[in-house]
Amino acid sequence: MRYDGREANDELRQIKIIRDYLKYPQGSVLIEFGDTKVICTAMVEEKVPPFLKGSGQGWVSAQYAMLPAANATRKQRDIDKLKLDSRSAEIQRLIGRSLRAAVDLKALGERTVWIDCDVIQADGGTRVASITGSFIALYDAVGTLLAEKHLRKDPMIHFVAAVSVGIVDDELLLDLCYHEDSRAQADMNVVMTDAGEFVELQATGEGRTVTPGEMSALMEMAAKGIGEIIRIQKETVGYKK
Amino acid sequence: MRYDGREANDELRQIKIIRDYLKYPQGSVLIEFGDTKVICTAMVEEKVPPFLKGSGQGWVSAQYAMLPAANATRKQRDIDKLKLDSRSAEIQRLIGRSLRAAVDLKALGERTVWIDCDVIQADGGTRVASITGSFIALYDAVGTLLAEKHLRKDPMIHFVAAVSVGIVDDELLLDLCYHEDSRAQADMNVVMTDAGEFVELQATGEGRTVTPGEMSALMEMAAKGIGEIIRIQKETVGYKK
Amino acid sequence: MRYDGREANDELRQIKIIRDYLKYPQGSVLIEFGDTKVICTAMVEEKVPPFLKGSGQGWVSAQYAMLPAANATRKQRDIDKLKLDSRSAEIQRLIGRSLRAAVDLKALGERTVWIDCDVIQADGGTRVASITGSFIALYDAVGTLLAEKHLRKDPMIHFVAAVSVGIVDDELLLDLCYHEDSRAQADMNVVMTDAGEFVELQATGEGRTVTPGEMSALMEMAAKGIGEIIRIQKETVGYKK
Amino acid sequence: MRYDGREANDELRQIKIIRDYLKYPQGSVLIEFGDTKVICTAMVEEKVPPFLKGSGQGWVSAQYAMLPAANATRKQRDIDKLKLDSRSAEIQRLIGRSLRAAVDLKALGERTVWIDCDVIQADGGTRVASITGSFIALYDAVGTLLAEKHLRKDPMIHFVAAVSVGIVDDELLLDLCYHEDSRAQADMNVVMTDAGEFVELQATGEGRTVTPGEMSALMEMAAKGIGEIIRIQKETVGYKK
Amino acid sequence: MRYDGREANDELRQIKIIRDYLKYPQGSVLIEFGDTKVICTAMVEEKVPPFLKGSGQGWVSAQYAMLPAANATRKQRDIDKLKLDSRSAEIQRLIGRSLRAAVDLKALGERTVWIDCDVIQADGGTRVASITGSFIALYDAVGTLLAEKHLRKDPMIHFVAAVSVGIVDDELLLDLCYHEDSRAQADMNVVMTDAGEFVELQATGEGRTVTPGEMSALMEMAAKGIGEIIRIQKETVGYKK
Amino acid sequence: MRYDGREANDELRQIKIIRDYLKYPQGSVLIEFGDTKVICTAMVEEKVPPFLKGSGQGWVSAQYAMLPAANATRKQRDIDKLKLDSRSAEIQRLIGRSLRAAVDLKALGERTVWIDCDVIQADGGTRVASITGSFIALYDAVGTLLAEKHLRKDPMIHFVAAVSVGIVDDELLLDLCYHEDSRAQADMNVVMTDAGEFVELQATGEGRTVTPGEMSALMEMAAKGIGEIIRIQKETVGYKK
Repeated sequence: MRYDGREANDELRQIKIIRDYLKYPQGSVLIEFGDTKVICTAMVEEKVPPFLKGSGQGWVSAQYAMLPAANATRKQRDIDKLKLDSRSAEIQRLIGRSLRAAVDLKALGERTVWIDCDVIQADGGTRVASITGSFIALYDAVGTLLAEKHLRKDPMIHFVAAVSVGIVDDELLLDLCYHEDSRAQADMNVVMTDAGEFVELQATGEGRTVTPGEMSALMEMAAKGIGEIIRIQKETVGYKK
Repeated sequence: MRYDGREANDELRQIKIIRDYLKYPQGSVLIEFGDTKVICTAMVEEKVPPFLKGSGQGWVSAQYAMLPAANATRKQRDIDKLKLDSRSAEIQRLIGRSLRAAVDLKALGERTVWIDCDVIQADGGTRVASITGSFIALYDAVGTLLAEKHLRKDPMIHFVAAVSVGIVDDELLLDLCYHEDSRAQADMNVVMTDAGEFVELQATGEGRTVTPGEMSALMEMAAKGIGEIIRIQKETVGYKK
Repeated sequence: MRYDGREANDELRQIKIIRDYLKYPQGSVLIEFGDTKVICTAMVEEKVPPFLKGSGQGWVSAQYAMLPAANATRKQRDIDKLKLDSRSAEIQRLIGRSLRAAVDLKALGERTVWIDCDVIQADGGTRVASITGSFIALYDAVGTLLAEKHLRKDPMIHFVAAVSVGIVDDELLLDLCYHEDSRAQADMNVVMTDAGEFVELQATGEGRTVTPGEMSALMEMAAKGIGEIIRIQKETVGYKK
Repeated sequence: MRYDGREANDELRQIKIIRDYLKYPQGSVLIEFGDTKVICTAMVEEKVPPFLKGSGQGWVSAQYAMLPAANATRKQRDIDKLKLDSRSAEIQRLIGRSLRAAVDLKALGERTVWIDCDVIQADGGTRVASITGSFIALYDAVGTLLAEKHLRKDPMIHFVAAVSVGIVDDELLLDLCYHEDSRAQADMNVVMTDAGEFVELQATGEGRTVTPGEMSALMEMAAKGIGEIIRIQKETVGYKK
Repeated sequence: MRYDGREANDELRQIKIIRDYLKYPQGSVLIEFGDTKVICTAMVEEKVPPFLKGSGQGWVSAQYAMLPAANATRKQRDIDKLKLDSRSAEIQRLIGRSLRAAVDLKALGERTVWIDCDVIQADGGTRVASITGSFIALYDAVGTLLAEKHLRKDPMIHFVAAVSVGIVDDELLLDLCYHEDSRAQADMNVVMTDAGEFVELQATGEGRTVTPGEMSALMEMAAKGIGEIIRIQKETVGYKK
Repeated sequence: MRYDGREANDELRQIKIIRDYLKYPQGSVLIEFGDTKVICTAMVEEKVPPFLKGSGQGWVSAQYAMLPAANATRKQRDIDKLKLDSRSAEIQRLIGRSLRAAVDLKALGERTVWIDCDVIQADGGTRVASITGSFIALYDAVGTLLAEKHLRKDPMIHFVAAVSVGIVDDELLLDLCYHEDSRAQADMNVVMTDAGEFVELQATGEGRTVTPGEMSALMEMAAKGIGEIIRIQKETVGYKK
């Protein structure tokens, strides 16, 4: 049995998605992967970064942060060190690329959707929960633009979700909680579409290297998990295809 | 009738306090004053700032921030500007002073309680909600220290809570929501104990000056409001005196 | 008798205001409250912050800092820590609000008056000396604008001055010097107009809480002190009403 | 034929490694992947980061930067923006993890090897050139420690090298130059050992998603390329196994 | 006749030095070179920078800044840009080197004298006024250490003062005011001892280059000016040799 | 004999200049003064700093930095301290002024030439090598502008080069290597034109003061050295006058 009581290595934790969690942003979600809880918001701004000015194309920009009390040890705020945490920098680049892959930026028009992922409780998998949750926030923000006739054509291309897999005690596990993650010999974060294609894949051998065979097995396990997660996403938003 | 439907000028919004909101901090609260929502946490660290080393005395240090999507317009993160927002700087100093007044720092022993107030939704009164909520987080953190025998004697001196009052259209109002606050001619934030004594008082004439008579009336209105809020605090923690 | 030789609890220290202290700014003052000495300057810039562009309205922006040698212990410069001192942040917000209350910003026209308060020697009450002195600097800068026909109508609404009061050894004192301030159980900074109305009031219980009765007594003592200070201001500028 | 004259999709650019490029560091290399040129240095410091103090274990820490003139458009220095470029933050974390996987940190002893990768000319693949080159710098720094008897047992576990692969115009390509990289629909950076096992893998769909079949083909192409690169590394250092 | 009324090219402006200008620092001076006014302070700290710990040697560290209103156009504070002004960085290095040359650092003992030069009004020559004035502040701080028996032997080696010279309209001028300085084709700042030897010399051709002959003539003119300034310094402190 | 084998006190180290060292910048040089190696680049940007907008005049802006491994002890990157090294600030101001003296900025037209000097190995004299090398980079960038008809008239006024001289063990030395520099009692950096006139001169007594006679002798020695260096510069670029 797994540390948090799950019975199978390829079993997800309970995933909950609360839509319209906040009243101001066009899209906002509280997502939970077990005890990992992230507030994901999507706010639309009617302008784009300088490099896109006049291009007719939009942008999706993502930021990721943790509340100081999200972990067992208090994490000093970035502003106190005057430095963006470099792990956060890496993660928010990943979230941004993943979500941009979900949208036709031309069809979005010259506007920016700001994605903010604030982890209020961390128990492993915060980046994949952030991607999964902020996809819904983005989906809802785009829905608002469509409902308010700011957009005539839906720019969403496909559903995008993410999950972590890893090797712990030489066993392959899906959706690692913090206890498993901290002991992992290798871990992989995978972002896929509802067509089963890859958007992003990041694998790291932490305690040991990974054979090509293990790499394939991890990718398959992740694909299966993402399939389930996208089913939950679709159910949440009442998507019927 | 008031903007958000309240019927009396001296009526509070609905106040909700959810204790044990997060699993890691020794004390954590989600507090709501109407649509204003703040996560308040209290984490204990077994060391003190340099100026207290060896003094036998403890410290309470507070930080305050807003999620980017807490307001109608997205607020850039401090780290992107490399500057602590000066309004946040002012507010967190106020929260820190208010909570230190609630504790016998000598009796707390040489440790720091870190208070973090993160506003997830702002609709006026975020600083007074932060003080009121983080008092409970502090109370619970101290309770944990007592339960775990790190403290033998309760260092809490009294209950502390806060409320805002203001003058809008020349009328005195209690507990201003954002719509009222943004049109206020003067506003006052008051922090008091359950003995009805003042801890902090900050009054600002924004559109006009305030006569001594109005000042007194505002203080009385605030005192009445804080009385009700402390009753809610005591109920929440099951305090029986 | 008080620490610095004053005989009465409600006695001010000697207040000196030297006008036209520097040759470049439109208004400049060296103000002394006893041994507290602050250079206050007002410089006019013919533009406004972005949020006022095109509004026809002006702005008054204040900054406050201390020379490293202004205190008994050398104070590291903010730039060495890359952080604005948070006490300075709080104080300069107070100065800015206080002076904006003295001017009709519409009548000032679309320009900014930059107020700089640099404490060269600190002996308690630096923020109230700064407000009192920079009011004169502002008054003189506006006078220059009038004399040079950049303004046709005087935008000054009233005189503004400030003083500190506090409770030391359970006695109420006016205009605390550093020695008194450092032992104060409570202190209050009050900003008022020549009509005896409040612009700002900030009270803090440092060692103990403050009863409503004490609060009123402190406010009265402050009002009396500010009355005298505004008389000195008016004398200094030769105001005859 | 490819943009830079290569004839096959799975052909590497010319790779040159100049050892002992600088006189001060224990290991230093100028590495070229075609026109991409990176100075990689390894300097030993006899102390470790705080989290390892007293652990008996060593550390490898990596930094990555570009000269302003390394690209066609001048790149502003990080210090002028007061922010570490977030792409650099991501890359230097990748380099650090990759090199730590090559060393037995326990056997390295309580010391840090500082790796610095400074790109003097960028033509695609700067991060994989950095990993490949800094492995040699690290290898030589460890060699120096062994030669000077600071280490008795060689802590190097295996050779580590890296290469990029990608999809351009729906064709799979090895070792992309900048012109190819800027038009890539997907790209992957792979870090492997001389045993053909994975250390790191980062794949990104930029213009489109990637099928599992393509993912496998890219991984195979990378594995073949890395095999050749490690042969060059071994030749360079005269490794004979 | 010169812009500010001086009759000779080699005439100094009026130089005033007010000792004991502030009450806290061990040495403090208000120095004026004509309309240029600088507050120079010297504060002793009983510790040294890390590189001198345990060496038995002391240090003199200097900082230089301008009040925002010291010039005709308001100068933004460094902290608002989060960058030390690079001109200030250059100047404070010059001041530090100049004053360290005046003291036997071994004889000073393991302590730091912090020199702060804050320009309150700038009319050319602020750096040379700063050096000249802070020499007196340093002299007085050392005098305090001697008087209080913290030092038994006087560590001062010689007097140090500074002056500027320059070429304006192809004429050589001593002690340039701002109006002259802003039109100078070349300028030179010279720091010398009372023995007529050089401590620092910085010459810059701004509009044109400088011939060796002019260079010598400028150096001579500076030497003469510094002679007079050191006479004033000695008179000020009542030095009798 | 000198530390690095040179036989005469007025002998330069071997100076090598490799032109067109990098492929992107309009001018780029690897310059060596013995073991001191600096990459100097010149990139043209078709805009000017705000203070020159619309003036028709161009600008030359210089930056100077060291690779972390350029010295025997690793130098932390500026971005890690969030502060531009103040020695670098001083040096890059010197480089900028020196190169601007070589160009008719009016004739350059409203564009900026960005000079970047990155020291890859430091063995004394990095600032003078930077000036000497970046003059060639600037010369080549201007040559490119002329060749591409962006300029019709050559804006270069004269050749500019630099050298260091100093006093070590009371002997005057030309072109100090690090070992000599670190023991110097005084050092001087001189920048001159091919007409033998001074552009910049910075002299510092580090261990002792400098007599006027020594000052002259140092200047003469520098002038002779710069003569030789400019001969090498002219040879390098094939200048025939």
